[in-house]
Amino acid sequence: MIVGVVGGGQLGRMLGLAGVPLGLRFRFLDPSPEAPARAVGELIQAPYDDREALRKLAEGATVVTYEFENVPADAAEYLSSIVSVHPKPAALAVSQDRLNEKNLFRELGIPVAPFAQIDSLDDLNNSAGKSIKLPAVLKTRRLGYDGKGQAIVRSREELAQAWEAIGRQPAILEEFVQFECELSMLAVSGSNGSRKFYPLIQNTHLDGILHLSEAPARCLLPSLQAEAERYATKLLNKLDYCGLLTIEFFMQNGTLMANEMAPRVHNSGHWTIEGSETSQFENHLRGILGLPLGSTAMRSRAAMLNLVGGLPNRNAAMQITGAHPHYYDKEPRARRKVGHVTLLDGGHGAFDARLEKLLAIGNSVNRR
Amino acid sequence: MIVGVVGGGQLGRMLGLAGVPLGLRFRFLDPSPEAPARAVGELIQAPYDDREALRKLAEGATVVTYEFENVPADAAEYLSSIVSVHPKPAALAVSQDRLNEKNLFRELGIPVAPFAQIDSLDDLNNSAGKSIKLPAVLKTRRLGYDGKGQAIVRSREELAQAWEAIGRQPAILEEFVQFECELSMLAVSGSNGSRKFYPLIQNTHLDGILHLSEAPARCLLPSLQAEAERYATKLLNKLDYCGLLTIEFFMQNGTLMANEMAPRVHNSGHWTIEGSETSQFENHLRGILGLPLGSTAMRSRAAMLNLVGGLPNRNAAMQITGAHPHYYDKEPRARRKVGHVTLLDGGHGAFDARLEKLLAIGNSVNRR
Repeated sequence: MIVGVVGGGQLGRMLGLAGVPLGLRFRFLDPSPEAPARAVGELIQAPYDDREALRKLAEGATVVTYEFENVPADAAEYLSSIVSVHPKPAALAVSQDRLNEKNLFRELGIPVAPFAQIDSLDDLNNSAGKSIKLPAVLKTRRLGYDGKGQAIVRSREELAQAWEAIGRQPAILEEFVQFECELSMLAVSGSNGSRKFYPLIQNTHLDGILHLSEAPARCLLPSLQAEAERYATKLLNKLDYCGLLTIEFFMQNGTLMANEMAPRVHNSGHWTIEGSETSQFENHLRGILGLPLGSTAMRSRAAMLNLVGGLPNRNAAMQITGAHPHYYDKEPRARRKVGHVTLLDGGHGAFDARLEKLLAIGNSVNRR
Repeated sequence: MIVGVVGGGQLGRMLGLAGVPLGLRFRFLDPSPEAPARAVGELIQAPYDDREALRKLAEGATVVTYEFENVPADAAEYLSSIVSVHPKPAALAVSQDRLNEKNLFRELGIPVAPFAQIDSLDDLNNSAGKSIKLPAVLKTRRLGYDGKGQAIVRSREELAQAWEAIGRQPAILEEFVQFECELSMLAVSGSNGSRKFYPLIQNTHLDGILHLSEAPARCLLPSLQAEAERYATKLLNKLDYCGLLTIEFFMQNGTLMANEMAPRVHNSGHWTIEGSETSQFENHLRGILGLPLGSTAMRSRAAMLNLVGGLPNRNAAMQITGAHPHYYDKEPRARRKVGHVTLLDGGHGAFDARLEKLLAIGNSVNRR
């Protein structure tokens, strides 16, 4: 059984590592000859909109999926005309456009921060400090990730500068949320409407890049898990979804506010490889292949530290009890995710002390 | 960092799956174009004694290891002249010859069943029923596995027939051990003399092929773990060993008797992928690369069922709570190991009832 994956980054690599034990074969499409996923499958090296390459990716595949949401809409359409594609391109389309995404959240009754559509500097002048309180964040509708395509607006004097900063593109202006913490929900949908949810994860970003994920979330109110599952269910239903869906939330005054969604496996769920009975990667594959979903129960409290811009000596992380390093075989450069380390409690105790050691290793190598 | 592996079977495949997350790259040497390990690394398709292929395997590799013990001695010698090879060829040489193996056990004070060297039918006539009580097992010194190269001798009338059955090869005659159970010890040796041991595993064979492994062993007396670790330590010391070593024992009257050893990862340790903090595969790699060894603590009680000769529907095994199927992407045929399923307790309870379900699935597909 062949699974085609658009994108051959570390998420593709970890999908392959989860799927090979199930007897699956993988084929990845990526423009880079150094795509990390090449270790676990065939790599078709070509641009994402290359029809011939897309045809090859689909050839004999049971299903095609993707590991990033900025797959060109044309490519997704073309693929779904020749092979089963999951999640469906409609989910991609929503997640590619912040305005559509926020509108969908609102339509489904999922709370969001106040936002306005911005198509011009005039729109910005008309919204900022009026319908949308300042400080606010101006975010391009498309192609923003890891803090790119965003500008903070503190006062009306900064409007023109912010509009320039994001390249005068269609955008949204969103009230700055004074959140207590950031959380993510990983939900997975299988055949016959089966659903599983991972426990809410608490995320810390540094310079716009995910730094640390902790499960269970330390800031959590017990009621929020059910609330997040309810929101996720609405999205899964609406999008007729198969596979893993990630929703990022802010928690403010003890309630959730959806920030964005990703129709794919997610960096904040890497700890599930060791920390859950079934990883997000395996459950995504089970979902898109119509296999029974695996248990999402936690096997241990866990924390995941991203390695950004640099890798520690292999020994360093391994010497911490309960630490599991993952290296993506990517050339380190500033702001690039090159690996992660998952730390498990595993009944060894002194979790926080071990986490401190791990964070110190991260601080010594990370370059943002 | 490149790891070369002689052999590209399922053990190589699982070594790759454990090592890719550590940022390692793999290269396998195997005569078959369908070698299961090709999913997780480069495959050099050539005979094991092909000098040019061995040179390619070693090129730029940090270390070369093997996933089966019948690597031709010449090939191992040649490899160690051009690259670091672990475990050392001396361990291979011992394990390739039952007589040397038994003599080494005896030399180190590790109990073994009474045995005699048999080089001719005369030798057999002189030993059977005299120095070696009947029933006994006649085993070829070399190239026996999964019950091949063995003949049971119940009476002196069967001697000639047994000698024919094993092809009139150099052999040993060993008293038939009325064992209470079969156990295996996985021990791993790292740099600076560091050592770790997995809990003793209880193994059940069917028709000479491993059927079921259970950890912890149900038949275990608590004192045996320390005894097995003491024997393993003697072997690791004697062989100046790096990596994972497997020793198979019989338990008789509450004491251990060594049956054989394998200088490699082992079928009876597949459950460590999900059941241990660090799998046998990852610890073997850590050992041969001089990285710190990982914890061998059990995360959950576990059982592993081999799939021999046939594969169940993927859904069937997945529907059992705590079951993790592994398929090797091999064409099923009788007596061929094509996959395994590990069942974890994982706090779900009713372990024995779930194991019964799993065994029923195995019975429905296994062809021996």
